[in-house]
Amino acid sequence: MDNGKRKNDAITARGEDFTKWYTDVCRKAELMDYSVAKGFIDYLPYGFAIWEEIRNYLDRRFKANGASNVYLPLVIPESLFNKEKEHVEGFAPETLVATYGGGEELSDPLIIRPTSEVLFSNLYKRLVKSYRDLPKIYNQWCSVVRWEKTTRPFLRGAEFLWQEGHCLFETEEEARKNAEDILREYETLGRDILAIPFLTGFKSTSEKFAGAVSTYAIEALMPDGKALQCGTTHYLGQGFARAFGISYLGRGNKLEAPHQTSWGVSTRLIGAIIMVHGDDNGLVLPPMVAPVQVVIVPIKPNDGALMEAVAEIEEGLKKAGIRVKVDADTTKSPGWKFAEYEMKGVPLRIEIGPRDLSEGKAVIVRRVSEEKESMALKDVVSLVPSLLRDIHAAMLKKATDFLASRIVDADGLDSLKKALDEGYVARMLHDDDPDTEAYIKEKTGGGTCRAIPFEQESMEGKVSPVSGKPAKYLAYFAKAY
Amino acid sequence: MDNGKRKNDAITARGEDFTKWYTDVCRKAELMDYSVAKGFIDYLPYGFAIWEEIRNYLDRRFKANGASNVYLPLVIPESLFNKEKEHVEGFAPETLVATYGGGEELSDPLIIRPTSEVLFSNLYKRLVKSYRDLPKIYNQWCSVVRWEKTTRPFLRGAEFLWQEGHCLFETEEEARKNAEDILREYETLGRDILAIPFLTGFKSTSEKFAGAVSTYAIEALMPDGKALQCGTTHYLGQGFARAFGISYLGRGNKLEAPHQTSWGVSTRLIGAIIMVHGDDNGLVLPPMVAPVQVVIVPIKPNDGALMEAVAEIEEGLKKAGIRVKVDADTTKSPGWKFAEYEMKGVPLRIEIGPRDLSEGKAVIVRRVSEEKESMALKDVVSLVPSLLRDIHAAMLKKATDFLASRIVDADGLDSLKKALDEGYVARMLHDDDPDTEAYIKEKTGGGTCRAIPFEQESMEGKVSPVSGKPAKYLAYFAKAY
Repeated sequence: MDNGKRKNDAITARGEDFTKWYTDVCRKAELMDYSVAKGFIDYLPYGFAIWEEIRNYLDRRFKANGASNVYLPLVIPESLFNKEKEHVEGFAPETLVATYGGGEELSDPLIIRPTSEVLFSNLYKRLVKSYRDLPKIYNQWCSVVRWEKTTRPFLRGAEFLWQEGHCLFETEEEARKNAEDILREYETLGRDILAIPFLTGFKSTSEKFAGAVSTYAIEALMPDGKALQCGTTHYLGQGFARAFGISYLGRGNKLEAPHQTSWGVSTRLIGAIIMVHGDDNGLVLPPMVAPVQVVIVPIKPNDGALMEAVAEIEEGLKKAGIRVKVDADTTKSPGWKFAEYEMKGVPLRIEIGPRDLSEGKAVIVRRVSEEKESMALKDVVSLVPSLLRDIHAAMLKKATDFLASRIVDADGLDSLKKALDEGYVARMLHDDDPDTEAYIKEKTGGGTCRAIPFEQESMEGKVSPVSGKPAKYLAYFAKAY
Repeated sequence: MDNGKRKNDAITARGEDFTKWYTDVCRKAELMDYSVAKGFIDYLPYGFAIWEEIRNYLDRRFKANGASNVYLPLVIPESLFNKEKEHVEGFAPETLVATYGGGEELSDPLIIRPTSEVLFSNLYKRLVKSYRDLPKIYNQWCSVVRWEKTTRPFLRGAEFLWQEGHCLFETEEEARKNAEDILREYETLGRDILAIPFLTGFKSTSEKFAGAVSTYAIEALMPDGKALQCGTTHYLGQGFARAFGISYLGRGNKLEAPHQTSWGVSTRLIGAIIMVHGDDNGLVLPPMVAPVQVVIVPIKPNDGALMEAVAEIEEGLKKAGIRVKVDADTTKSPGWKFAEYEMKGVPLRIEIGPRDLSEGKAVIVRRVSEEKESMALKDVVSLVPSLLRDIHAAMLKKATDFLASRIVDADGLDSLKKALDEGYVARMLHDDDPDTEAYIKEKTGGGTCRAIPFEQESMEGKVSPVSGKPAKYLAYFAKAY
C-alpha cells in the first residue's frame, strides 16, 4: 500500500494536457466515477459534499430573497413540451424520452425534464388567479437530463444536479429586478464561497436562453483561456405565460399575463472550482466548500500523549464549527498522507510529532502555498478560523489577478482571433447581430460573446469592427466550454 | 373573499368519507397539486417544507450513523437491471422505460430508477477491493418512479421522494446491526419528530423486499383501520453482491462477497402525518415538522401599538428558533384566518387584540384541542417552546393510545376477518408459509402480515390456527395501504 511514492505522480501535469489533468483530478480525488449508463456519472461522497455546501449556502440566500422550495415531476408530457416554440427548438435535440410505462406503450411519450419551465408554467396556470397571488417565487433542487454526445465530468453530462428558480411577477420591472438580484447572489457565491471572480452581464441575442427576452450570466475564465458559463438568470417576459395560458385578474380588474423569470446554477460549479484553483498536485478547495477544511496528521499515531493533544485540538476545532479530520491510520506513512490530502485539496494541514509536542508547537501547511509554518500548539484552535479566511482571500486574489491579466481589447477580427487563440478574453464593440456573431464564431474557430457588461458608455458613432454596422455594446468575447 | 364562512366547510367530514377527506386536506391545505403528467404530483411549498424538516433531521442522524451522501444516475440500463432475478420480478411490472435519446433509438433501453440497488452494486463493484474499503455506508436523497395504476397523493404515486441507504459490510452481523440501527432511527423519527408510534418488526417471507434475506419495517395504523408501511430496512445478504460481481480481498487473503443492506423512507410519511393526526377541520401538524409552528393573528392589524407588541413577540420567537408567521392581512377577517390556520394544521395560534394588549394578555389556542387559553403577554416568548413540546407529547399520547386500543388477538380465520373488517390490527400465530398467507389474504379480503415483533416467546407446540402447521411467530395482521 505504502510504497513511498507520491500518489500525485498519477496526475498528468496541468501544462502537459489540461483536459487529462482535469479528468485525473476528478477521478483520483474521488469526486466522481463513471456510471454504468453511458454519459452519466456517480457523484461520490467527496464531490457530493462540495455540492451540499453550495446548496446549503444558496438555499438560505434564496429563502432570504423570498423563495420557497417545491418539487415538480421529472417528466413532461411531449404534447405540452411542444407548446413554446423557441423553447422546444432549443431543447428537443437533447431530450431523453420514455415511451413505455408498466409494460405498455405510452400514448403521450414523457420527456425526462431537461429544465422545468413547462411544468412550472402549468402549475402556475392552476395556482395564479389574482394579482394577490403574485409574486410567486419557487425554486427546486433536482437533476435534469440533457442527451449530450460528448461528456466531461461536472462540465457537460447526460444528467447534472442543479437548482431552478421559476417566478412570476406583475410587472417587467419586478421580474427584471428578481433576475438581477439572483445574478448578484450568484456573484456573491463566487466571491464569498467559491473564491471565483465572475464576468457578469447579459447575453447577446445569439447566446440567450431559448424563449427568454433577456439572459443574465456569470462567466468564469479557466486557466486554459476558455470561459465557463457558471450560472444564468432569465427574464422570460410574458411569452411562456401566454403560450401556457397563465393569466390573472389585475389591479385594473382586467386579465393580465404575468412576467416570468427563471434562474439556475448546477454542479458545473464543481468543475469551475477544480479548474480555477487546482494545480499539478491536485485539487485546491476553497475553505467554505471543502468537505474537510483541516486535516491533522499525527506523525506517530501510536504515541498516547501525542494523540491526546491531537484529540484536544480536534475537539476545539469541531466546537468552533470547523470540518476537521484526524488521520491516525497506522498503515500509511505521514508522507503518503501529505500527498493524499494535497491531492484532495484540503485547505489546511496540521502536522504534529512527538518533538513538536515537547516543544509546544505544530507545523501548519496551507494547501495554496505548501509552505511549512510553525505555530504554538496552544494557539492552533483560536487561529484556524482566521487562517481559513486568509486562505480564502489569497485564493480569491490569485483568481482575480489572473482574470484581470487575461482581458485585452480587440479592434477587429485579426486581433480578436489572436487574443482568443492565446487564451485571452477580448473586449470588443458588438452590433448584437446574430449574423455577425455567427461569422465571428466561424472565423475565430469557436469564439462567442460571453457577456455584455451592464454598465455601457455611449455607443454614438461607434461601429462593430467586424460588420461595420452600428455598435450596440462593448462586449466580452472568448472561446467557451 | 371573506364571506364569514368557515373555509373548512369545504372539507368532507372524516367519518363520512375518509378517502375524500384525505384528498380534500391534501388539496385545501396546499400540500400538493395534481401535475400535468397523469399519476404525478407537484409538491407545493407547504407540503415540501414538511419533507425538508424530515430530511434535515434524518440526514443528521444518518451521518451520525456513519453515512455519506452520494448521487447516482436516475437511469439503469435494462440489461443490468435484469441481473438479479427476484429483484427484477419485483419491479419490472412497474417500470417507466426510456427508449429514445437525442432523437435516436437506444440500443439498451434505460429504466427510470424504481430503486437503486443495481446502481449501488455496480458502483461498489468498482470501489471495493479490500476489507479495508469496508464498511461502505452511502445514502442518497432523490426521487424514484413506479408506474402505478391507481395513485393517491403521498401514499402511492408514479414518482415519490425518498432516501435510499445502500451499505456493504464484512459480516452478516454488522450488516444486520446496520439494518436494525436504522430501523431504530426511523422509530425515533416517529416518536420524537412525527408523533407517530410504529409497530416494528420484520416482514414475513411473503412480504419481504424483492431480493432481500430479511426486511424490517415500521408500520403505522391509520384511523380507517388500515396499516401504512412507513419505512423499511433490508438485510440483502450476499445475493446482490454475487449477482453483480462485488468481491473483496478479505482478512484471510481470500476473495469474499460483502453483506449488503438497504433502507429507505419516503414522502409517504407525509400521508401518515395527515391521516394519523388530521381531523374534520383539516391538518394537525406535529410541531417538529410544521412549516409554521406559531401563527400570530393581530385582531386589528392597523392598530400601531398592537402591531408593535406583535412585532416584539415575533422577534423574540424567531430568536428562540421558532418558525413563526404574523398574518396582518387587512383584507381577511380574524375568523377567516383562524379557520385557515386550523385547516393548515398550525400547532399554536396566538390572538392579540387591542383589549388584550391593554390588559397585558394574549389568547393562545392549541390546534389539537382548539380551546382558548389566556396568557400574560410578557410570558409568551418564554413559554412557547414548552407549549410546543406539550403539544407534541399530547399528539404522541393520543396516537399511541389509539394504536394500543386497536390491537386484538385472533385465533382463527373468523376472528381474524372480523377484527380486520372492523379496522383492528390482529395478533395471531403464523407459520410464515406463503401459501398460508395467500389464503389469509384471499379469505379476509386483503389482510396481510404487517410485522413480526423481534421479541418472540417460545413457539413449542403452537400452530397456525389457519393452516394447522407449526407456528413460527406471533405476528401482526392487518389490511394495508
